[in-house]
Amino acid sequence: MDEFRIGIALWDGVEELDFAGPYEVLTAWARGSERPVTVTAVARSTEPVTCSHGLRVIPDASFEELGHVDLFVNPGGRVDPLLGDDAYIGRLRAMADGGTLMTSVCNGALVLQKANLLDGRRAATHWGSYDRLEELGVTVDREARWVDEGMVVTSAGVSAGIDMALHLVARLDSEEMSAKVRRYIQYD
Amino acid sequence: MDEFRIGIALWDGVEELDFAGPYEVLTAWARGSERPVTVTAVARSTEPVTCSHGLRVIPDASFEELGHVDLFVNPGGRVDPLLGDDAYIGRLRAMADGGTLMTSVCNGALVLQKANLLDGRRAATHWGSYDRLEELGVTVDREARWVDEGMVVTSAGVSAGIDMALHLVARLDSEEMSAKVRRYIQYD
Repeated sequence: MDEFRIGIALWDGVEELDFAGPYEVLTAWARGSERPVTVTAVARSTEPVTCSHGLRVIPDASFEELGHVDLFVNPGGRVDPLLGDDAYIGRLRAMADGGTLMTSVCNGALVLQKANLLDGRRAATHWGSYDRLEELGVTVDREARWVDEGMVVTSAGVSAGIDMALHLVARLDSEEMSAKVRRYIQYD
Repeated sequence: MDEFRIGIALWDGVEELDFAGPYEVLTAWARGSERPVTVTAVARSTEPVTCSHGLRVIPDASFEELGHVDLFVNPGGRVDPLLGDDAYIGRLRAMADGGTLMTSVCNGALVLQKANLLDGRRAATHWGSYDRLEELGVTVDREARWVDEGMVVTSAGVSAGIDMALHLVARLDSEEMSAKVRRYIQYD
């Protein structure tokens, strides 16, 4: 089977648990999956990034090195630098046009919508960003842990990225695999 | 008020969510706390560590640089290198003797017990380590997300470190602060 390739974005200001939750779930899937699954922490360059609360992480690859991914995760955190980065937003649009399943955690939904990926779609986001996302014309589901709109999946704040990632494993692999990962991380 | 100092251990093989969950919760507390709270990711040296699933993280300080901490978090993951590291185990014992509140996530409880910190105490751990911890003479609580035994607090597997950290915030600060952090990370 073809390798299933996943990219998780990092940048100076990314919220630690926003990326670490999906990273844990998706790499646990990768470890157990029959189909080869790879998870790459990707950033502007491979220089260390300083996360929102100070954790320093080394990206695995730059966007130039990444190549095609089947699934992309845009965590949240201090997203203003991404919202003002035309090259980054252009990359998101190109990935979506190329068939990548686009996902966000927390206020990462603001970044997806900057690339117009949530036009006409419902979305979840952190409660602190409900109003801002609605002002961008998106229908916000204030109850959902995650919202699956086909080629775009969004989650509520921070820890909800874990729930979304477990859903993605169920959708892309099986309910059994998702339950196995959930049990592994003891997320009851 | 005196600074409240927290150390979270990293090493090659630490499980990503085991440390990132408490890191997120405790740094969110630090951001909102009236009393100064610092969180330091500490390792043998400040060279990057490669976590269990491949994430590379840069420690903030070596153990030599750390100084006294009020709270120490020993995550789980591939713990065998720690279990065989007499200097590391000696450090845990010295911290406990010095009044540090000692905590573990997941199979990190095995490491605490290597320093005999769980003698005569109940503990939580990952379900995959119930038998091994019991063989070391510890009474394992198989139902609890976390077990608070005063100067030693342990949690169940991986994501349960989030629950334990929220409990620690409630105990060390207030229920209100813990609820605030829980709401911030949308951990419902």
